[in-house]
Amino acid sequence: MPLGDKIGYERNECRYCGVETEFTDDTPGLLDFNIRSGGFDFILTPLMNPDYRPSLLEKESIESRVLPFAGSDLVLSPSQWSSHVVGKISSWIDLDSEDETLRMDSETTLKQEIAWANHLSLQACILPAPKGASCANYARCVNQILQGLNNMQLWLRIPLVKVEEGSVDMNSNNLIDLWELWNSFRILCEHHVQLSVVLDIQSSLPSANSLGRWFGESVRAAILNTDCFLTNGRGYPCLSKRHQSLITGFFNHSIQIIMSGTPTHIIPKAGVDLTSNHSSESIRRNPFRPYLDYIAYLFQRMDPLPEQEVFELGYRDFLQSPLQPLMDNLEAQTYETFEKDSVKYIQYQRAISKALLDRIRDDKASTTTVLMVVGAGRGPLVRASLMAAEETGRKLRVYAVEKNPNAVVTLHSLVKMEKWEDIVSIISCDMRYWDAPEKADILVSELLGSFGDNELSPECLDGAQRFLKEDGISIPSSYTSFIQPVTASKLYNDVKSHKDLVHFETAYVVKVHNVARLASSQPVFTFTHPNYSSKINNERYRKLIFEIPGDTGSAMVHGFAGYFDAVLYKDVHLGIEPSTATPNMFSWFSIFFPLRTPVCIRPGSPLEVHFWRCCGSSKVWYEWCVTSPSQTAVHNSKGRSYWVGL
Amino acid sequence: MPLGDKIGYERNECRYCGVETEFTDDTPGLLDFNIRSGGFDFILTPLMNPDYRPSLLEKESIESRVLPFAGSDLVLSPSQWSSHVVGKISSWIDLDSEDETLRMDSETTLKQEIAWANHLSLQACILPAPKGASCANYARCVNQILQGLNNMQLWLRIPLVKVEEGSVDMNSNNLIDLWELWNSFRILCEHHVQLSVVLDIQSSLPSANSLGRWFGESVRAAILNTDCFLTNGRGYPCLSKRHQSLITGFFNHSIQIIMSGTPTHIIPKAGVDLTSNHSSESIRRNPFRPYLDYIAYLFQRMDPLPEQEVFELGYRDFLQSPLQPLMDNLEAQTYETFEKDSVKYIQYQRAISKALLDRIRDDKASTTTVLMVVGAGRGPLVRASLMAAEETGRKLRVYAVEKNPNAVVTLHSLVKMEKWEDIVSIISCDMRYWDAPEKADILVSELLGSFGDNELSPECLDGAQRFLKEDGISIPSSYTSFIQPVTASKLYNDVKSHKDLVHFETAYVVKVHNVARLASSQPVFTFTHPNYSSKINNERYRKLIFEIPGDTGSAMVHGFAGYFDAVLYKDVHLGIEPSTATPNMFSWFSIFFPLRTPVCIRPGSPLEVHFWRCCGSSKVWYEWCVTSPSQTAVHNSKGRSYWVGL
Repeated sequence: MPLGDKIGYERNECRYCGVETEFTDDTPGLLDFNIRSGGFDFILTPLMNPDYRPSLLEKESIESRVLPFAGSDLVLSPSQWSSHVVGKISSWIDLDSEDETLRMDSETTLKQEIAWANHLSLQACILPAPKGASCANYARCVNQILQGLNNMQLWLRIPLVKVEEGSVDMNSNNLIDLWELWNSFRILCEHHVQLSVVLDIQSSLPSANSLGRWFGESVRAAILNTDCFLTNGRGYPCLSKRHQSLITGFFNHSIQIIMSGTPTHIIPKAGVDLTSNHSSESIRRNPFRPYLDYIAYLFQRMDPLPEQEVFELGYRDFLQSPLQPLMDNLEAQTYETFEKDSVKYIQYQRAISKALLDRIRDDKASTTTVLMVVGAGRGPLVRASLMAAEETGRKLRVYAVEKNPNAVVTLHSLVKMEKWEDIVSIISCDMRYWDAPEKADILVSELLGSFGDNELSPECLDGAQRFLKEDGISIPSSYTSFIQPVTASKLYNDVKSHKDLVHFETAYVVKVHNVARLASSQPVFTFTHPNYSSKINNERYRKLIFEIPGDTGSAMVHGFAGYFDAVLYKDVHLGIEPSTATPNMFSWFSIFFPLRTPVCIRPGSPLEVHFWRCCGSSKVWYEWCVTSPSQTAVHNSKGRSYWVGL
Repeated sequence: MPLGDKIGYERNECRYCGVETEFTDDTPGLLDFNIRSGGFDFILTPLMNPDYRPSLLEKESIESRVLPFAGSDLVLSPSQWSSHVVGKISSWIDLDSEDETLRMDSETTLKQEIAWANHLSLQACILPAPKGASCANYARCVNQILQGLNNMQLWLRIPLVKVEEGSVDMNSNNLIDLWELWNSFRILCEHHVQLSVVLDIQSSLPSANSLGRWFGESVRAAILNTDCFLTNGRGYPCLSKRHQSLITGFFNHSIQIIMSGTPTHIIPKAGVDLTSNHSSESIRRNPFRPYLDYIAYLFQRMDPLPEQEVFELGYRDFLQSPLQPLMDNLEAQTYETFEKDSVKYIQYQRAISKALLDRIRDDKASTTTVLMVVGAGRGPLVRASLMAAEETGRKLRVYAVEKNPNAVVTLHSLVKMEKWEDIVSIISCDMRYWDAPEKADILVSELLGSFGDNELSPECLDGAQRFLKEDGISIPSSYTSFIQPVTASKLYNDVKSHKDLVHFETAYVVKVHNVARLASSQPVFTFTHPNYSSKINNERYRKLIFEIPGDTGSAMVHGFAGYFDAVLYKDVHLGIEPSTATPNMFSWFSIFFPLRTPVCIRPGSPLEVHFWRCCGSSKVWYEWCVTSPSQTAVHNSKGRSYWVGL
């Protein structure tokens, strides 16, 4: 029984809750107790008797003996196994033990249990946390297993331990920060997609920055021990504010909860609340029920997603190639989608209004202002301009310049329908080559990509400013790109799945969600219009140094999330940079620049990043690299993998 | 005029010497002065007037102006340019300057000069050393150039600066160790094969360990300033012992010398030695001549290479796939080559003699000892056994077991020719499956690979020990593999050139030469024979920690050189581990385990390495990884890339 459908969530966005159990031979009874009557969605249970040790078997008996597994595929049907059971690999195994017998017993048992789980078609098995700071042999063995695994996932259990201030010593072998253990493990396993994390939540939580790292990792579940719970005034279990907000964060990232430990909150028989939606019988039967009810309550209590977020759910962490609107012509559907972004056009209207008021004093309101919309598309900025004129009582003569002949057809019918023929002239021409009959007072354009200049707004406007008066206004007047380093294991693996260089050197448009933002974003390139410098150069180079907050611990940089902010006119801006983003605007997702080899940063080591914007005769491209704490190759040299055509 | 052919060197192993010159328009005069009369092989000279700055040109004049290059391809023929001139890129360029004009002038000039050098078909250009600790933009620009370069090489000039004890601070931006700058640069350029180093030798030299790193890098030339020279009693220039041994090291690694600086040693006119092989006229004409003579003297003075080294010259740093003698049958030529290694058979004979004396007391010398040679090949160990018997006066009955039917043919004719029919029985059978008519006192085998067990000696001898008496002797009685971390940029690039995973996960047999051995080798796996443990397990796991000497500075680990040492019998051993290697034995080169991503180690950080020997039903393979200071993937998981067939 899922935690409940929530308004604003898609069907597959409900959340599940499981419970960890001890080993028993009676798996059907276990399922009945925890699922049918307990209300949990699945159980996490040991697959093999914990007393089993391969080395204790008599050599002769090996062939005749049956391994001591908990129930077979006749006791439960394969579909019951697969939908209700997550396998728990024996917790005694220690593949990096100095004791060779224990090490070899562990290796044998691990392989036997996973082969068995695979036979049962389980969806996942949880691997016990490595016992010490070293996990090379454990990782090697799991890596071998992953090479031959079908669909089953392996989730490595990692205790979410609080790292004491100052105790992180990168030169010591004391790996107190267990994120580093996870990091070692997954690098040894080559970032295998079927290897994920399950976090063991403790009663004391690490800092918010340290926790935040995990939201960029592949975390599938969080195990919540009853120790973490407090008791409210009525004797019910509840969680601290910090634990509550962590659980909410898990819900937001589709991370399942698994209850664990010893239930200590016994609801007094007399105190059963008759208005609650569960019977007193089930409470008596499963002592975890009050905890499950509380988790369900936290989920139900969450604010519904804003409409825009609901719309964007399907795009989360889904990589798209950026548009090439200069080389390619957009389709009607694309225009229609973007035109629905009313917030964007309201900002444009505000900017145009301000510019009109600044340019034409009230006593000269009858003067006609020449306004050119370059890249008019199907006309939304023409409409915004005319509404600004109406709002301010100014007179306009509008030229709508558009290179896409298909959009020009729509423009013509719009002008006819709206009876704008006297005011609006439609020019079917590339703005860079148009021979304008007069010069403009105001040049309005919206040629921005997620990274600002990445759809070649600078090159287009450099061409268009020929027909802007010397004191004319460009809307936007400037725009700046921003980047920030992120942990993004999902995006990294999606890029990696293509197994080629090209995809690792491409920037993607993506609604980033399963990411950890490791530092505030910083500005990269700025372009200002009009640009009257004697020799226009749109090449740029920027070196950026990011300081990761000290309490984050070590973290992995899989790439950079990119944004833009544009000044339309004076104080009217528009953008997606997180700290200043225009609310409720959906025209742009962020951009993502991957790294071919993720870079691990340790506390106190700044991250030094270089970005270049390069221009050739027929294309524009970016190159990027990291030079500290370690070096990467320069990505996308000569635009060999990714470029925007002029 | 090369420094002279040396006995023991191949034709292409003579060495060249060049001289660095100032910019001049008179390139033919420069060549005449330095090459025809000066005796140098080539000049290193600026290609462009050092006063040139693109930003100082009038915009209008750009198209009409000729770039101020030193002489065209009409002044010197292209073949003169290419064989006698190494281009020196303008030393004022600074592509990472904060001054944007200088930065952009530098970028333009660099591209123009290299395009020109390419036009002239120069073999190489020397890039000036980066000006500061940051070189990202310089490297990016060079990387772009390398993408489009034909055959020309680019040599980055790196001053060989002495790093003061304790001044290497990895958290500071003060990159005092210029090896790190080189390392950044080449990683940013993706280890491009056409990017190499030229070292600028100073009068004060770094420690031997610090210098040693460079012998694993791609160093093409060393520039020797006249400052480095001392003056001997007769007024001639000479070098300190440390400089002499460095230059000798360069000769050994085919690194050319380029003289540079201001000549300060003027040979007194009266003091011209009439017996010297140069005329007093040329001395007057080229003041560098005494330095060149001294360099030539150092080269001539070197010890000739031992015969074995001369034989191996052609194999230096040439990667070979290891033999699969168990799966494949060796060819006659291969047997013949290995049989020439007399040192090896002398060691075997010594070991067998000692074993015979231990086993049969003098008063029982008439007792016949049963000796089996397993893997007899064409019979060299049979011969060694019979010679040991003769030497010790002991009686033998020999079984020569060989699985290769072709070798068995040769064995038969050998036995007939030598009239050994009464003593030697030839068994055409795989030793693992032979049903022996009696048990052996002594089991002699030579199934060792460069890494000891890598040709499956353990598996073969486990099978053969069935027919060894309980108190019988195996020769060898044990063997151990060794590894050591190495800088080996040439080997790394050869592996990388295949552009696939398989080659990065293969161990190669190779005569390592252009490598820096970063730490002493350590033992990995040991096998002892006979092995009477109840459950024979030839899987192995070893974790090794290498401490790199503190005065080395940072270094790059491209992989591991592997060796073996075998105890044949008691104190008679045989092996190629460098510190204990059997002299003048040529049957084995070392083995090389590459790393997919080289690991950079900084002073004080130990290198933690894991090696596994894994056994399947039909193959044996190794897996390996590094876990500290950073993690690599586990290489060759499940033997997917490299394995030895059973």
